[in-house]
Amino acid sequence: MRTRAAVALEAGKPLEVMEVNLEGPKAGEVMVEIKATGICHTDEFTLSGADPEGLFPSILGHEGAGVVVEVGPGVTSVKPGDHVIPLYTPECRQCASCLSGKTNLCTAIRATQGQGLMPDGTSRFSMLDGTPIFHYMGCSTFSNYTVLPEIAVAKVREDAPFDKICYIGCGVTTGIGAVINTAKVEIGAKAVVFGLGGIGLNVLQGLRLAGADMIIGVDLNDDKKPMAEHFGMTHFINPKNCENVVQEIVNLTKTPFDQIGGADYSFDCTGNVKVMRDALECTHRGWGQSIIIGVAPAGAEISTRPFQLVTGRVWKGTAFGGARGRTDVPQIVDWYMDGKIEIDPMITHTLSLDDINKGFDLMHAGESIRSVVLY
Amino acid sequence: MRTRAAVALEAGKPLEVMEVNLEGPKAGEVMVEIKATGICHTDEFTLSGADPEGLFPSILGHEGAGVVVEVGPGVTSVKPGDHVIPLYTPECRQCASCLSGKTNLCTAIRATQGQGLMPDGTSRFSMLDGTPIFHYMGCSTFSNYTVLPEIAVAKVREDAPFDKICYIGCGVTTGIGAVINTAKVEIGAKAVVFGLGGIGLNVLQGLRLAGADMIIGVDLNDDKKPMAEHFGMTHFINPKNCENVVQEIVNLTKTPFDQIGGADYSFDCTGNVKVMRDALECTHRGWGQSIIIGVAPAGAEISTRPFQLVTGRVWKGTAFGGARGRTDVPQIVDWYMDGKIEIDPMITHTLSLDDINKGFDLMHAGESIRSVVLY
Repeated sequence: MRTRAAVALEAGKPLEVMEVNLEGPKAGEVMVEIKATGICHTDEFTLSGADPEGLFPSILGHEGAGVVVEVGPGVTSVKPGDHVIPLYTPECRQCASCLSGKTNLCTAIRATQGQGLMPDGTSRFSMLDGTPIFHYMGCSTFSNYTVLPEIAVAKVREDAPFDKICYIGCGVTTGIGAVINTAKVEIGAKAVVFGLGGIGLNVLQGLRLAGADMIIGVDLNDDKKPMAEHFGMTHFINPKNCENVVQEIVNLTKTPFDQIGGADYSFDCTGNVKVMRDALECTHRGWGQSIIIGVAPAGAEISTRPFQLVTGRVWKGTAFGGARGRTDVPQIVDWYMDGKIEIDPMITHTLSLDDINKGFDLMHAGESIRSVVLY
Repeated sequence: MRTRAAVALEAGKPLEVMEVNLEGPKAGEVMVEIKATGICHTDEFTLSGADPEGLFPSILGHEGAGVVVEVGPGVTSVKPGDHVIPLYTPECRQCASCLSGKTNLCTAIRATQGQGLMPDGTSRFSMLDGTPIFHYMGCSTFSNYTVLPEIAVAKVREDAPFDKICYIGCGVTTGIGAVINTAKVEIGAKAVVFGLGGIGLNVLQGLRLAGADMIIGVDLNDDKKPMAEHFGMTHFINPKNCENVVQEIVNLTKTPFDQIGGADYSFDCTGNVKVMRDALECTHRGWGQSIIIGVAPAGAEISTRPFQLVTGRVWKGTAFGGARGRTDVPQIVDWYMDGKIEIDPMITHTLSLDDINKGFDLMHAGESIRSVVLY
């Protein structure tokens, strides 16, 4: 069949919206009609050419929601008509990683997904002249119709609006999951969030959900403050206005009884390796944990004195918020529908597929939190 | 009173054994007759001048065992005649750190201890001409008699031999504690130990005690192998004999079911920041934990790509094996007396106080695991 898609023909160029060929689902695969997709910084990272593993031509997009329209042989967990969220981190429930119970990083289809291919080593997408087009993060939600492995879709309730829950496919789950799955923040904790963009806001509301007492936001842009407060931030620090942001956080978290100070948990949502170091070093001696969420530039390295760890700080990271997609994503959709978390204020712009490049422009200009493409 | 002590008069010089003055215990303090003390790399680190916080003249030594001979006003938890192990990490059970239940890094007397003084800001030691001598790590076990805060002694059973249990005051507890308190290694785990000196051997026996399946030792010296095997090592890697130690460990830990490979836990006992990086990177994607035990040179930094953490590895450190001294040290003494752990083969040399500098020579020459001074 044919479908409309925004194709990344080469690095650094705008996407081109065109008709492409899409083969039907093979064994273990499903075809999904994407109803809405968010535009994430990771798409931009790859499109810009900065991603050393980026492949072209490809169909980007990994933050979608849609409806199953066809299933291949052997598919049992979803059927046509089911509402689903594509998962760039699949959950096969069979591999050593899934069965460890200690990680969400399923490895069942890791090799082919990294090569821009379906698990059988081929692509379902091609140009009208027959040139193959790579899949992206196993999702390719910048196409109106896409094919995914069955293990890479989360079935969700049918009354949830596509244009909001698509954001659960990446940003919402990453931010909230980092708090509840990776850091396992407890009631009464003191936490710091570096970077108050889309991920940072979701970390903030994850901290609120977890019952944190002090939720400190750090950003170079004072304009981020009102929205951050809306999502639970209790204190704001602009590093431009203080000499040493680490010391500022340590002082802010001291109490008459605890004169050491430091955050119980910190989260880096910037991708800047210097900020990652501050995020570690502002945590509490003895037990502070720092979670890296942001994606650093290729080759960038984090560093610190080992003394920071020897005196009890813990350095961690998280991918997709430590969430097991098929198990946890439907629950996060429920939380949204039940009003436990908010998404609507973060969807600042809605676009048609034809205008998808405007979404990237809005991101560059810092004008959007999330732009969503509606098919 | 007067006591004999080995005094560090200045950095880089041998210790000088002499008579010094020792004031009696003030409120909350106890005087201990040291019966035996180990010589640890940390003493050497300070004596050499490499420790930026080193103070002179001082009485080094922090790995001792002895008998309480006098208690100051208000002391309730020990009495003259009690057998004790001095604690360089005290346990006050009153401060924010102790009461957190999340760390062993008691902060009750941290400031004065770091200044080489008792909690009231003065020293109990002085030269015969009246010049004050600094305490060291709150212990100064290179003196036949020493004064310590009550919260810095662990009361232990009286049938345990001083010349062996003194090692529990640092090396034994650090190594075993890193496994059971910090890493919380579980039965069946695969673990790697970098550096098979005194601390490494204790990590090995901690892993055996914890029921680890695969216990890989890494050292540049093949001669370390027999003793390491005695303490539980199941596999040995000499980095000189392989191209890439990280890849070697990953391959060794692969199974038919788990083709990713990597250690569940790794421990750095070298203090070398490049080894610390290898120790992190050889752990398993998704859940591997690396624990830094070794003390790095002043100013040295650890580094890695944040991707290592984002894909699920955790970087931690440990001080005194995460052990709460007054609570956990008596239990480790019981384990030794019950034969659950071994110490005797690690005490390779026994010296008199007059010969204490020979202990440092043996350490430099790599001929000893632990030299113990018997008073």
